[in-house]
Amino acid sequence: LPSKLPDVGGTIFAEMSALAQEFQAINLGQGFPDYSPPDPLIRAVADAMAQGHNQYAPMPGLLQLRQAIASKIETQHGHAYAPESEITVTAGATEALMSSLLALVHPGDEVVLIDPSYDLYAPAIRLAGASAVRVPMRPPETNDPSFRVDWNRVEAAITKKTRMLVLNFPHNPTGLTLKPEDLDALEFLVGKHPILLLSDEAYEHIVFDGQTHLSPATRPLLAAHTVMVSSFGKTFHATGWKTGYCCAPRAVMREIQKIHQFTVFSVSTPMQAGIAQYLRQSDALSGLSGFYQKKRDRLTAGLKETPLRPLHTEGTFFLLVDASAIGFSLEKTLAIRLTRDIGVASIPVSAFYADPDVPAANHHLLRLCFAKLDTTLDAALERLSGLK
Amino acid sequence: LPSKLPDVGGTIFAEMSALAQEFQAINLGQGFPDYSPPDPLIRAVADAMAQGHNQYAPMPGLLQLRQAIASKIETQHGHAYAPESEITVTAGATEALMSSLLALVHPGDEVVLIDPSYDLYAPAIRLAGASAVRVPMRPPETNDPSFRVDWNRVEAAITKKTRMLVLNFPHNPTGLTLKPEDLDALEFLVGKHPILLLSDEAYEHIVFDGQTHLSPATRPLLAAHTVMVSSFGKTFHATGWKTGYCCAPRAVMREIQKIHQFTVFSVSTPMQAGIAQYLRQSDALSGLSGFYQKKRDRLTAGLKETPLRPLHTEGTFFLLVDASAIGFSLEKTLAIRLTRDIGVASIPVSAFYADPDVPAANHHLLRLCFAKLDTTLDAALERLSGLK
Ligand SMILES: CSCCC(=O)C(=O)O
Ligand SMILES: CSCCC(=O)C(=O)O
Repeated sequence: LPSKLPDVGGTIFAEMSALAQEFQAINLGQGFPDYSPPDPLIRAVADAMAQGHNQYAPMPGLLQLRQAIASKIETQHGHAYAPESEITVTAGATEALMSSLLALVHPGDEVVLIDPSYDLYAPAIRLAGASAVRVPMRPPETNDPSFRVDWNRVEAAITKKTRMLVLNFPHNPTGLTLKPEDLDALEFLVGKHPILLLSDEAYEHIVFDGQTHLSPATRPLLAAHTVMVSSFGKTFHATGWKTGYCCAPRAVMREIQKIHQFTVFSVSTPMQAGIAQYLRQSDALSGLSGFYQKKRDRLTAGLKETPLRPLHTEGTFFLLVDASAIGFSLEKTLAIRLTRDIGVASIPVSAFYADPDVPAANHHLLRLCFAKLDTTLDAALERLSGLK
Repeated sequence: LPSKLPDVGGTIFAEMSALAQEFQAINLGQGFPDYSPPDPLIRAVADAMAQGHNQYAPMPGLLQLRQAIASKIETQHGHAYAPESEITVTAGATEALMSSLLALVHPGDEVVLIDPSYDLYAPAIRLAGASAVRVPMRPPETNDPSFRVDWNRVEAAITKKTRMLVLNFPHNPTGLTLKPEDLDALEFLVGKHPILLLSDEAYEHIVFDGQTHLSPATRPLLAAHTVMVSSFGKTFHATGWKTGYCCAPRAVMREIQKIHQFTVFSVSTPMQAGIAQYLRQSDALSGLSGFYQKKRDRLTAGLKETPLRPLHTEGTFFLLVDASAIGFSLEKTLAIRLTRDIGVASIPVSAFYADPDVPAANHHLLRLCFAKLDTTLDAALERLSGLK
């Protein structure tokens, strides 16, 4: 049986979660909360089922949800997407990304990724018959202990074959956010090269220290070339509900919907109805950043008692820790050992690089997810404080 | 913007549903019930949410649901799929079909379809870089007013490039079921040619007149080459819940899961937990065929008062009607007129052929969905009795 993706295995997230379960470790690996969506949201979904909203939603999503998404984005970014033709509700951000890549990327094309990059992008590009061109961020240095995107390197990777650049800010796993000067650089790129932007904004509502999320959609020139993708799972503590969305200019969305109608046709009607209902609450989207900033700070402070040195994170619910003090050659080996011996699961950052087994990609960094109850974070810190 | 599927528009199901809404017609087009899942099933999903089952399910599905699927299939067909490695819960049968085709069909391959065929197969094959080879069933004749599959014609379509044959029994839209001699023919084909079978069995639990559903999985030789796909939406009156599954031998399932993990990663956890719970009820799967047989008979009897001549249907919740007495040249024109002027939406059978606008595909047949309350069926019949 010949394989379409011969060198792709199970995702690192599934692998580490399985390991966490096997060793009864505290799972700070795969990105999901250990608490539930707000009660009113759960009730809204249950009510939708009881009221008979159980058959196919329209292929692009329930109109009332698309309208709610449009007005949310207009409030956030000042950009007005048309609910009728520029928004699709998807089976999580995952399906939005896959359907967009399958729809827009052609055999022989190149797609530029910025490493570390989320594990879906490269295989999905390959499945579309295209190739990923991977531009690494500059890794942390002593003088500047943060990852940095060098937009000159990104531009240097663009060729005549480049169809698309994939963006993912707030960035998984580094927590980097976009600044105005990044948007300037992107405007320059898009003005000069005929490329599309696929902007994975799953963590758009989790941004710290008084920043606000800067989407490419805030700039009309960028919006005209952008597919914006997001996730209600991440925003409403409901990763298992598999509901997200994407927005794009009409002609682009028409192509995405051609694929979406055959990948899933439509998305869970009760979930859509419940989320549309819940979004009417004025406070539905407020408070998330503050909620997670406290958790970030709790984890960061607690890590002082361990040999793991936390990096600064500006957004998402992930924190990178530098584990050089422990001294393993491969991050993945270290992540497995920590799961087995200390009982805390994490994600090796090397998994976000082209070849996770090449030591060059190993900066001794692990990703910890802090979308956890304070008691969970404290228990994990307690275990990590035993590390030598 | 170059298109991956330039000649694909919206699905005929979405198109006719939109038209039905525009003209406030009774919608016997797109296949979904106008009633809800059983109350205990709705409660089981609501309970799952309230009990905190709201985060990512494992990529292949909740183990308890995979186990329930395995024992259901063993009872039905005597074939034991391993829950750990041979079953995946999918975002409806749609995602199972798309992920299977993307995983198993390679650029340059050929895939044999039997026309009339469901509208997803051909575009998904094309998206995989392969081509569909379409073998028509013999259409109804005066002496034998039923569609028939000619397995010799199917075999004649198989070449060295053929990777797969797509099956769909109980058949949408004709209602044909597989008989033992069809399985014999398939065993012959699979013994002689190195092909896979993709068996779309979404209507497996809706089979009439005392027949039972014969899946290729009942024959070990066929099971070894088959991806079996089914739908809880169709079985539990919950098309909007987007939950289905597929089963295949381990090596095949490994390839499907490589794609599934990137199309949706996993499927709604509360829906999965609720369905797993509900499947424990001993009568969860009984009675569906009887329930739908009564509706088939009600619709068939009522059509006597109209110029539409019903064909016999052995399974599914669809009935074909011969509209030659009305005398339109194109089925689609007729379906649109009936929606607009009479207020009953249907699906033109020509939509299940390669080029729906070629008159040769038009047998003056419309598909009516009888997954409707008796009052809905009666109201539609009342309107149709006004037809000349
Ligand atoms: C779809 S499982 C991965 C969840 C996630 O976004 C992450 O952990 O990075
Ligand atoms: C996914 S919409 C189509 C539903 C269906 O199976 C049909 O009407 O044939």
